[in-house]
Amino acid sequence: MTGLRKSYGCPVEFSLDLLGGKWKMVILARLKQNLMRYGELRRAIPDLSDKVLTERLGGLREVGLVESLADADGVTRYQLTARGESLRSVLQALYDWGEAEAATLKVSIRPPAPTSD
Amino acid sequence: MTGLRKSYGCPVEFSLDLLGGKWKMVILARLKQNLMRYGELRRAIPDLSDKVLTERLGGLREVGLVESLADADGVTRYQLTARGESLRSVLQALYDWGEAEAATLKVSIRPPAPTSD
Repeated sequence: MTGLRKSYGCPVEFSLDLLGGKWKMVILARLKQNLMRYGELRRAIPDLSDKVLTERLGGLREVGLVESLADADGVTRYQLTARGESLRSVLQALYDWGEAEAATLKVSIRPPAPTSD
Repeated sequence: MTGLRKSYGCPVEFSLDLLGGKWKMVILARLKQNLMRYGELRRAIPDLSDKVLTERLGGLREVGLVESLADADGVTRYQLTARGESLRSVLQALYDWGEAEAATLKVSIRPPAPTSD
């Protein structure tokens, strides 16, 4: 949890420093719906490069919001930790707002890519 | 509303593109509580330079989330538009999560600076 200060002006500023940028929240929003393999996440967020996805997943594990599990089939899956689950209402509020704004502004939200691999 | 795409992978990504970075959400969170003069906002968010606050306020007005009103006393105040008010649950969720995390991590949240000027 590098780069955090000891004091913040308001809780929102602290939350956003902890969450650190757009992609972490987009990854968390995907994992909120399902635990996912790396390849599934990669396809679900096609605008994110391998390099950035790997970095952001590492950062999210470091701060204890995401954990990886190796299943009996030897495949690693990512899921929210209990602490990550505490973000559910933040992620849902961002989801609901984005959905309403997209409808208003006639921006298309693509359905998620198929997740079998 | 420059820089938006016509299609997004998920509503959360779209929300975060619309909201564009940490400081806009911190400003919106302040204005959610009260309409404020420029100087009040400046003191409430001391980590933000004049340049950046001015730029972010301009961006928020451009996308229709914030408006400025010149009062009878000739002082300009900033407030959320109806569209900005629709962010209330997003901002509240970020506030609540940040408050709980700050308590857990023993990070101090400073009280807002005095707002008279």
